[in-house]
Formats: sequence, structure tokens, C-alpha cells
Amino acid sequence: MEWEDLARELSIQTPSKIVLLVMDGVGGLPVDGRTEIETARTPNLDALAKRGTCGVTDPIMMGITPGSGPAHLAIFGYDPLKYQIGRGILEALGSGVEVGRNDLVARGNFATFKDGIITDRRAGRIPTEENVRICEKLNGGLPKRPDVQVRTFPGKEHRFVARFTAEGLSDALTDADPQKEGNPPIPAKPLAPEAEKAAAIVNRFIDDVTEVLKGEPKANHALLRGFSKFPHIPPMQELFRLRPAAVANYPMYKGLARLLGMDVLEVGAKPVDLFDALEKSYANHDFFYVHYKKTDSCGEDGDFAAKVAAVEELDSYIPRLTALNPDVLVITSDHSTPALLKAHSWHPNPFVLVSAAARPDDVQVFSERACAKGLLGRFRSIHAMPLMLAHALKLEKFGA
Amino acid sequence: MEWEDLARELSIQTPSKIVLLVMDGVGGLPVDGRTEIETARTPNLDALAKRGTCGVTDPIMMGITPGSGPAHLAIFGYDPLKYQIGRGILEALGSGVEVGRNDLVARGNFATFKDGIITDRRAGRIPTEENVRICEKLNGGLPKRPDVQVRTFPGKEHRFVARFTAEGLSDALTDADPQKEGNPPIPAKPLAPEAEKAAAIVNRFIDDVTEVLKGEPKANHALLRGFSKFPHIPPMQELFRLRPAAVANYPMYKGLARLLGMDVLEVGAKPVDLFDALEKSYANHDFFYVHYKKTDSCGEDGDFAAKVAAVEELDSYIPRLTALNPDVLVITSDHSTPALLKAHSWHPNPFVLVSAAARPDDVQVFSERACAKGLLGRFRSIHAMPLMLAHALKLEKFGA
Repeated sequence: MEWEDLARELSIQTPSKIVLLVMDGVGGLPVDGRTEIETARTPNLDALAKRGTCGVTDPIMMGITPGSGPAHLAIFGYDPLKYQIGRGILEALGSGVEVGRNDLVARGNFATFKDGIITDRRAGRIPTEENVRICEKLNGGLPKRPDVQVRTFPGKEHRFVARFTAEGLSDALTDADPQKEGNPPIPAKPLAPEAEKAAAIVNRFIDDVTEVLKGEPKANHALLRGFSKFPHIPPMQELFRLRPAAVANYPMYKGLARLLGMDVLEVGAKPVDLFDALEKSYANHDFFYVHYKKTDSCGEDGDFAAKVAAVEELDSYIPRLTALNPDVLVITSDHSTPALLKAHSWHPNPFVLVSAAARPDDVQVFSERACAKGLLGRFRSIHAMPLMLAHALKLEKFGA
Repeated sequence: MEWEDLARELSIQTPSKIVLLVMDGVGGLPVDGRTEIETARTPNLDALAKRGTCGVTDPIMMGITPGSGPAHLAIFGYDPLKYQIGRGILEALGSGVEVGRNDLVARGNFATFKDGIITDRRAGRIPTEENVRICEKLNGGLPKRPDVQVRTFPGKEHRFVARFTAEGLSDALTDADPQKEGNPPIPAKPLAPEAEKAAAIVNRFIDDVTEVLKGEPKANHALLRGFSKFPHIPPMQELFRLRPAAVANYPMYKGLARLLGMDVLEVGAKPVDLFDALEKSYANHDFFYVHYKKTDSCGEDGDFAAKVAAVEELDSYIPRLTALNPDVLVITSDHSTPALLKAHSWHPNPFVLVSAAARPDDVQVFSERACAKGLLGRFRSIHAMPLMLAHALKLEKFGA
């Protein structure tokens, strides 16, 4: 019996409300002795650390750096080692592409094909506007096939997403990508008999693309990788009996939230829009996932000062959260993104939980090192959901 | 390989002695800034915290509130998610009913049955004395059946336990309880072919009860729930090579201890009787489970002051424990029962271990928040047994 079974057995619906604010990638590493959060002036976050119970979380396990998909799954209470979301799905979600149960999606590269070999796997990194034109050309010009609907969606530079809609498409396919330049294209191969239909459709699509794009100087071929279908993940309504809402303004996080059954609220592009949307819909749900992206973006850019400013900007909105007086308020992160590393990292995330049913500790400020001394200690992110549900009195007793 | 396999492989019998004192439900939540233990004056418990090594334990996993059964299994070194004890068994144990390997037990309600429907699932909550009379009437008046022996045991008000003794009774049965009033009775249904015999016996019993009680104005029908058999749990002698004794004065804890193979000592009803019994039998065993109930009862009542007094009362007996000078002395709890919540909770338990082989830390007082800063950190209760055995030098080296 695992947490998921316990959740199904013990969770109950109650009027109590949970707000989970994810400051994406907020954890960092010191520069001149202080991390980004330690450098930022954060009176409101610090006040929450004083009131609440603190800890630090390992997204997956100690030392493992997660992508956004598994890191988020974990804080939503899903075992990220059990539920693996295909790269194609994540790329699609990240591009804002809707994915349904009958869709097979893949990450694509436009490539340059000449004399039977791939001469450039990225088509000279064509500008994104070129990519948009190429995708329109394909969506208008590809021959109609009776057994499948195909659409391409432009990403940045040479990247795109291909979506195949038909009954019975398996994602048990090898990549249609020779990996190295100077090699001929290779077709997708079925890894199981039930994937033969998908392989035939995908390989015919690649031939169709090559035909439609044959006049293009650079982007005249398509490589496809990471074939994946909509994963079978039990929705949060079923597993936790929540009525969850996502308050996010980036496509990938909205898409992930939708995968888990959350209602994805209409949110504008600016940080302030998150809090407007939260307040507007606060009466209609009992679990709110609020996603703040800027801290991660600045970390990825290696811009320490900008990340400090992003933390401070978020801090200024905290009074709007506390004014709602949720039964449980958690502020944490999916993973760290130290500006020093310019990338996601394995370092644990600060975690603060404020609730009338919490044991307060003596942590005085919200930071990686201060929270590590909190009462919750160090734990894996997957325990965040049981903690939130417990403090909201949404879990019944196990056994008698 | 799991802990249980390691225990079988590595545990050895030695003369060293372990005393485990469970202060049931002792963990709490602050009222006016201090929890129950923090409020209590506990010079003796604090002295142990100073001498020993401290930590806090999660009974099952973070956020999960346990019943007494799973919480105790965990501190005895049994995985509570693997060994689940049926409600009928726990009710039987709680009522002091002996349960053997051939017994099927169920929790019963006396109910009111009229014109083909259940009009009151609790028979107007008849007084317990009435219940005693009804059970005697049944035990004397039920027709003798050649294939089974049945006995009923009165509980409080309308509650009773039914025990069916026969070869080959499976507990894979649905409840014989329509759950809502205004519905006709429903029979127990077998969930597997091997439970057909048990279903027939149980349903015939219900008919027999209705016949014997037909003159009763209120308690004239029986509802049965939580059919369960004696669980297959390896005894502590086998798993840990201990000669264990239970020093408890409440039936359920005695029953649980018996399930695990402990010798259940004769103990009077008062807290002081625990320590008399312990001293008297100290020479005869090498593991003593001492169960102090009052802290939990006061917590369930929401009586903060009484719980503080219960902690102080227990503290006064600590010198009698330390005078025995056990090789390992552990004081902890099965789960928290904050007076603030009037119920069991998920909050971790304080844990102190005193032993010549322990690494003392700088914890100065015995409390939830002080122990959380101890050297043992935060761990699951199931690790308590390996820690006790290790410090008693009762576990050999794993591997060479």
C-alpha cells in the first residue's frame, strides 16, 4: 500500500482551502556568501516563515535534478518515478498545444536534407518567423489522409510539435532521427506490434513533409523524437477529492495542471495577474496552484540580480495571499535554479506551511538555509500533498 | 530486502534489556504558544532528554493520521501498511475478547427492525446494562448449530462483538449493514468463493438473532461490519528473538501485544500499577512495552489542562524506570493527540533513547520541538525497533 492508495482511501471533501504557491526555481547558491533569496528583501515571506512550520524538500531524491514535469508532479502528490510524462507531451504542453486522449505527439526539428543525407539537424537554426511560415505551409499543403489528422505547431527556431490524431495510435516508437549529421534519415520503428499503424502513419508524414518542403533551402525535412501519448494519470479530483484550480500564465504549467484535472483559470501574462485571477475564483475551488515563473527564468539566465528582484517582486504580492486567509498556505518551489549554475539543480527547496493546525518553529526568515532548520526537516516533495491535505483536515485516520 | 528480512537475519538473543514507554497521544499543538508537554513540568523526562539522543517520528508517513493499531505496529517494528488489522479484530481486542486462529469476528450494532426495514441502526442507543442482558439472552438462547460456535460480547450502548468459531471461515465478506435507516437489512455477501461458508453461517446467525430477540422493543436485530480474522503476523520472538512483555491496562493494547506474541502481564487499572508490574516481572523478559493511556484520553477529550497533568503524573514515575537501569530506555508515543484537535493527528512524536551506546545530543527538554532538534532527526516510527535493538547490541553486522 502506497501513498496513492492511502490518498484514495483517506481523502475527504471539506470546505477548507489550500493555496500552494510555487516560486519556480527559487532555490539558489550563494554568490558573495548569500543565495538569491538570502539577498532579497522579503519582509512578507519572512513573516510567513515566522508564523509557519518550515522545511526543505528534495524534488525526487537527494542529488537528482528534475525537469519541470517530474518536479511538479511530485509537489502535487504524484510519484514522479511512476508517472513519467513523455518529452513530446511536455513539448506540446509547453507550446500550448492541446493534447487529447487520441493524440500522438512528437517533438520535431526542421532539418536540411541533401543528396540522401541530413546535412544540418537544425536547418541552420532558422528564425522563429520562418518556422511559423513553414508550419503554415505544411498545415495547408500536406495531402489529406483518410486515416489520420496531422497538425504541426511552431516552436522556437527550428523546433516544432507534430500532433497525429487517430484511433489506436501507440507511442511505442523509436525516434525518427539519425542523431548525427552526415547520416541518412531513419524511419520510426515500432517497438511493439500494436505500434505498426503509428509507425506507418508517422513515416508517411515525414515523406509528405519532404515532398511539400522540397523547394525550401534549409528547412526541407523533419526529424521526430519523443513520441508520446496523453499519460494515464488519475485526476486530483479522484485521488484527493479536491476541486483544484491552476493559476499560471505559462503554457507548460497550464498543460501539466490540465493533465491532473485542474481547472485552468484565465490569467494574464504579468505576475500581478496571478493574484487577480486567484482572488476572482477563490470561492469556486478548494485547491489553488499558483505558479510564479520569473525566479526560474532569471536563474536559467544566470542573472543573480534579476532573480533577487523577482523574489522581491513576488514578496510584494504575499499580503494578497494572506488576506484570503486560506486554511493552508504553502510556499515552496518545484526545484532550484541557481543563477550560478544557469540551470535546474538538485538542491532542496525551501518550504513553509502556514495553518492553524501546524506546529510553528523558530525559523525567522524564508530561505534555503533557514528553512532547513525548521520542524519539518528535510523531506521529499511528494510528501507536500499529504502535509497540505492533513493540515486542511482533508485526510481521515488510517486504521483503527 | 526489507527491514523484516534484515531483522530475521541479524537479530540475536542477549541478556540486555529494553524498556519502551509509550505515552499514548502525547504530542500536541500549542495553545498560548506552548504544547501540552511544553507546558507540563517534567524534570525527570527532561533529565532523560539531556542524557539521551532525541528525535521525532512520523507514525506511518508524513501527513498520515494513524489509528492506534497501525501506530503501535510501527513502533514495534512492523510495517503498518503491510500488516493491516481488521476493525472487527480491533473491536474484539478493545473489548477484551480472546481471538484465536479459527475465529471470525465482527463489530455488531443492535438495531431496531420493524415492518421489514431497519428503523434505528443503534436501537435507540440502549444502555450498556441492557446490552449485557441482550448478549446473555443470545448466548443462552441462540439455537446450537453443529457447524459453528457463536458468542456475542457486549460493548458500550448498542455495540457488541460477534465471534464465530469454526474451521475454514474466511473474512472476505461484505458488511451486513444497510448503512442508512429506512432500508431493509442486507445479508453479508462473499467476496470470494472460499467465503461462501462464512456468509451462510453469518446470515443464519442474523436470522437466529432476529428470532430470539423478536419480543424486544428496541434491540431486535443485529447489523455486522468489519468481518476479520486473526492476522498472520510473525511474533516478536521469531522476528526479533525477543522475550517480550506488555505492561498495559487497556484491553486493546493488551490484545495488540498478544497478537505480536508478547506476554501480557497482570496489571491493575491505575498508572502506578504499570510500574509495579514492570518491576515485578523485570527479571523474566528482555523487552518491555509499557503503555500509558491517559495522555491520549485527555487529548481526545480536548482537555489541555488534564493532558498537562497526565504528562506530569507520568513524569513522577520516571525514577522507577531509570532505577531499573535498562540497557535501552525509549520514551515516545504512537501518534499525537493534540487537545486542540480532540483527535489523533499526523504530527510527529517526540522520541528519546537513553543507552550507553547512544550519541547524546544537546537537547535539554523532552518536547516535540526540542526533540526535533536532536541527533536522530525526523524518522518513521518503524525505525524505532532497529534503533532499540541496535543500542541493546541485539543486531549483528549486515554483510562482511
